[in-house]
Amino acid sequence: MKYPLALEKAIESFAKLPGIGRKSAQRLVQHLLKTEEREVLQFASALQSLKTDIQFCSRCAHITEKGEEYCLICSDPSRDIHTLCVVEEFIDVFAIEHTKSFHGLYHVLHGALSPISGVGPGKLTIEQLLHRLSKEPIEELVFATNPTLEGEATAMYIKKHIGSDTTLKMTRISKGIPMGGDIDYADEVTLSNSMQQRVVF
Amino acid sequence: MKYPLALEKAIESFAKLPGIGRKSAQRLVQHLLKTEEREVLQFASALQSLKTDIQFCSRCAHITEKGEEYCLICSDPSRDIHTLCVVEEFIDVFAIEHTKSFHGLYHVLHGALSPISGVGPGKLTIEQLLHRLSKEPIEELVFATNPTLEGEATAMYIKKHIGSDTTLKMTRISKGIPMGGDIDYADEVTLSNSMQQRVVF
Repeated sequence: MKYPLALEKAIESFAKLPGIGRKSAQRLVQHLLKTEEREVLQFASALQSLKTDIQFCSRCAHITEKGEEYCLICSDPSRDIHTLCVVEEFIDVFAIEHTKSFHGLYHVLHGALSPISGVGPGKLTIEQLLHRLSKEPIEELVFATNPTLEGEATAMYIKKHIGSDTTLKMTRISKGIPMGGDIDYADEVTLSNSMQQRVVF
Repeated sequence: MKYPLALEKAIESFAKLPGIGRKSAQRLVQHLLKTEEREVLQFASALQSLKTDIQFCSRCAHITEKGEEYCLICSDPSRDIHTLCVVEEFIDVFAIEHTKSFHGLYHVLHGALSPISGVGPGKLTIEQLLHRLSKEPIEELVFATNPTLEGEATAMYIKKHIGSDTTLKMTRISKGIPMGGDIDYADEVTLSNSMQQRVVF
């Protein structure tokens, strides 16, 4: 006995999302079938709007509303144009902005190098970043890619491509024990990083 | 810094789904922003179709294509109309059908009693079930609700409402150690059920 076509298609769409298997997809669709029609149609139109109302900033590749060439950060004259922060995803921009601890510009790579998943340098906005470095008055490049194998490799790759023949200051966000963390439970690499990058108290 | 409206709406829609928090919703939307437009639009139209192309069987409350009053099972003359299997969700119908071990009809409750989540008898199709029992030539009622607190309570509730003054045979799917399971790891209740419901070998 097969699922009706409409059901099967909805399940398949959900199952294509990262972290959602077929079983979870079935449960989500089961939930939606019992959800009010108005709410489901709002969901559908929200998905459409993602593609019609959002585009990427032509300078930093952060998200921006359709029709706006530059994002809110790039078009803000009060930002420090000498400091550029490289992040993997646009969501990281929101996370950093939320901390109010950075006032420069951003560059969104849209991923990290991952040969296993087939993500090479061409799939990221590295080319655009190098182009920006050659044209904009950037003095410090802050690597805020994730402290994962992929994030580290991506930062290293970019650093290598910039080369040592430059006055550009390159920095990396610090690694260490997170607030509320427990030294006893921290992994060896983190603890070792935390010790090596100790700061004056 | 706020998310653009289109993004916020999509995140909210995902976060309303069971088991998906705001953080996961953000990741899903991030993924969709990088997904091909065609695929996202297919997703949106699949959601719409859920509401326009699927309805519930007017007899057993299983899903059926729009325009069909009865589901495929209810309209199949080869089914045994004397045996009725009560399940919580339509997905359970597919699971049982897949086993090819049941040839009667179904009744989908669309949930289980759960006072904590505000699911009372009125939110389930219990009324319709009792109505069917009074009109259809049903001889055996198989309770195939989940062996959870809610599923058991729902089966008990229906059994109590049918009363003891009936010739209807009522059965419950057996509980025990699942295939491939480990007696040593089974919980006490399951193991005890498995022992009490032992069958001739």
